[in-house]
Amino acid sequence: MSSGKILVAQGGGPTAVINQSLVGVVLEARRFASTQRVYGARHGVRGILNEDFVDLTQETVANLEAVAATPASALGSTRDKPDLRYCQEIFKVLQAHQIEHFFYIGGNDSSDTVRIVSEEAQKSGYPLRSVHIPKTIDNDLMGNDHTPGFPSAARFVAQAFAGANLDNAALPGVYVGVVMGRHAGFLTAAAALGRKFPGDGPHLIYLPERTFVLENFLADVKAMQAQHGRCVIAVSEGIHDASGTPMLAKLAKTLEHDAHGNVQLSGSGALADLLCEEIKSRLGIKRVRGDTFGYLQRSFLGCVSDVDQREAREVGEKAVQFALWGDRDGSVAIRRVGDYAVHYELQPLEAVAAKTRTMEDALIAAAGNDVTPAFGDYLRPLLGGGLPQAARLRAPKVDKVLGR
Amino acid sequence: MSSGKILVAQGGGPTAVINQSLVGVVLEARRFASTQRVYGARHGVRGILNEDFVDLTQETVANLEAVAATPASALGSTRDKPDLRYCQEIFKVLQAHQIEHFFYIGGNDSSDTVRIVSEEAQKSGYPLRSVHIPKTIDNDLMGNDHTPGFPSAARFVAQAFAGANLDNAALPGVYVGVVMGRHAGFLTAAAALGRKFPGDGPHLIYLPERTFVLENFLADVKAMQAQHGRCVIAVSEGIHDASGTPMLAKLAKTLEHDAHGNVQLSGSGALADLLCEEIKSRLGIKRVRGDTFGYLQRSFLGCVSDVDQREAREVGEKAVQFALWGDRDGSVAIRRVGDYAVHYELQPLEAVAAKTRTMEDALIAAAGNDVTPAFGDYLRPLLGGGLPQAARLRAPKVDKVLGR
Repeated sequence: MSSGKILVAQGGGPTAVINQSLVGVVLEARRFASTQRVYGARHGVRGILNEDFVDLTQETVANLEAVAATPASALGSTRDKPDLRYCQEIFKVLQAHQIEHFFYIGGNDSSDTVRIVSEEAQKSGYPLRSVHIPKTIDNDLMGNDHTPGFPSAARFVAQAFAGANLDNAALPGVYVGVVMGRHAGFLTAAAALGRKFPGDGPHLIYLPERTFVLENFLADVKAMQAQHGRCVIAVSEGIHDASGTPMLAKLAKTLEHDAHGNVQLSGSGALADLLCEEIKSRLGIKRVRGDTFGYLQRSFLGCVSDVDQREAREVGEKAVQFALWGDRDGSVAIRRVGDYAVHYELQPLEAVAAKTRTMEDALIAAAGNDVTPAFGDYLRPLLGGGLPQAARLRAPKVDKVLGR
Repeated sequence: MSSGKILVAQGGGPTAVINQSLVGVVLEARRFASTQRVYGARHGVRGILNEDFVDLTQETVANLEAVAATPASALGSTRDKPDLRYCQEIFKVLQAHQIEHFFYIGGNDSSDTVRIVSEEAQKSGYPLRSVHIPKTIDNDLMGNDHTPGFPSAARFVAQAFAGANLDNAALPGVYVGVVMGRHAGFLTAAAALGRKFPGDGPHLIYLPERTFVLENFLADVKAMQAQHGRCVIAVSEGIHDASGTPMLAKLAKTLEHDAHGNVQLSGSGALADLLCEEIKSRLGIKRVRGDTFGYLQRSFLGCVSDVDQREAREVGEKAVQFALWGDRDGSVAIRRVGDYAVHYELQPLEAVAAKTRTMEDALIAAAGNDVTPAFGDYLRPLLGGGLPQAARLRAPKVDKVLGR
């Protein structure tokens, strides 16, 4: 006899649609007659460790739908990356609460947690189904055409660069926009979708998939400035030199490391400021401005792709179906079929766990400072409907009278 | 016999709705049988000096409407601040092209330019009507309830802080968001409209209307961190010490000055980074993140208040009506009547020119680290319809089994 108890949690960085997946799990689970309780753990695995659970069976559908449309993990999140011992503790709590289905919405670290918990359950013969539900604005999960959260963040970045390009055209100069993404450049590359007219920026795009060479960068900026009288640049926070040292690390005096031992790249405007200083001092360009998109790109209330919303909901629903009907552990994956449609598969946890996907070579321009048209074909259907469109005046010039 | 020639230009920092005013001028002017040509100057007064005009009479209505919905000065802008001699040159070009109506969309510097040009025309007996059309995200024009461009930027800031608050609630820590505004804190204050539930951030708001005391700031942050376990802070880029020195100037090694002799505050993440460093080192809080909203808050494609759009259109239309029917020079002003409606007046150029409005005392909390409810009453109707709403889970806690 099953306990009918289900647990769902959210890990890692929030996204605009991570609550769609949460609500997908809750509503789909509540459709099953066997379901007795749907618990949510507060702040991810940390909340499991502390038995910090809320009873989502007692939520109204109206409020769940409102939460689904709200960005940033409604259950709270965590940066904890459990090791084996931590996972064993998680498993103890799941047993104590007679949880028999565990859903964890997160990125590759979260999938690794699900993998270890799943193994622990198997070892001890406890009847636990564990399913990882993908999310990450970085789009860096293996086996997925793309990951929920990425399309909405990409939409923000595209709209931001479309606007920055207009602003820069009005008051010409050099503009550097720094975008999140430590190892994968997908989100930075989305800046390219901000272009509409010939000559529109971003004129240059730098990705962590390619070595960043400061001299080449400055030569690129100089050339674009000469061509357009201005230059809009998209830069990934993860750009690094040939040795793999982040460009930010070359500048910062005190470097913060996160719980995973990585240098803290986000939450500071230092990289944009450094690059602007180089452009000013080395190229003698006066009007140079840098923005770091920071947390806005993942949390801004009111910029979301409807395609992303729908798919994020579906990966939650499918996770429940895979677990309750399919009786299998795994990680839900989005595959692209046709142009454009998706279907969902359950892939082995080992295929995703703790691995990182980066941009395929075919998506990056040979010069390493832009994307290819193939990237546009890839991203465009994900951005959703109703994308705002920029327009330009087309008025003809008036003849001079004074000949100035 | 009138030449029927009209000139319109855009100056200063772009806004989300500055093209609504442009299109308001063009479409309204084209309705008058007396109108022969509507010229646009490229890049503001700089374009007038250079006779760099386009013929807006030859634009389609469809394209004008598309341009109206596009952020950032479609004619191009300039940071030039004309002196008397510059204005005399402007006047020469206007005469040479037989321009008899001059409309300049801009902030307080632009209104001063219109004032001088208007005086030059009067002195020489040339029949020129000059009207200033207000715009600025800073909301710092005298005699206006608010200025076109401010409501849309305020909406961006409110939505950004609503999202940053959600993100910060999911992964608790201290978050500092730096908002534009050198002397006027209206835009930073808009962060307060991002709150919905009790305990929502921003928990602290610092405005340039009050002296910034670092020790008080740190004490405030410490108290909020103790109360909420997290702290979201809105800071104006213009915060300064008792002597008026910008906080940024206390830190930066090389300071850029703009054409008006002011220290360059925007286009750098330095202030946010400085404040974060102080919080980390002095309060020992580990997770401290800073964002500088930068150019996104004025140029993001796809965040606009419909109230702002309509009013920005109307100030353009009214400018033409005041000039062609009223035969008066001046600056169009928005007055609030009822709750909520507006009417438009033409105020003397001297009332606006080169003056700066700041936040009234009644809008700022006594402690100097927040706004009053009156500010919410003031701003709420300006933000427009369809504001995205955040929701929270309301699920009850589950009893512990292991007592952790």
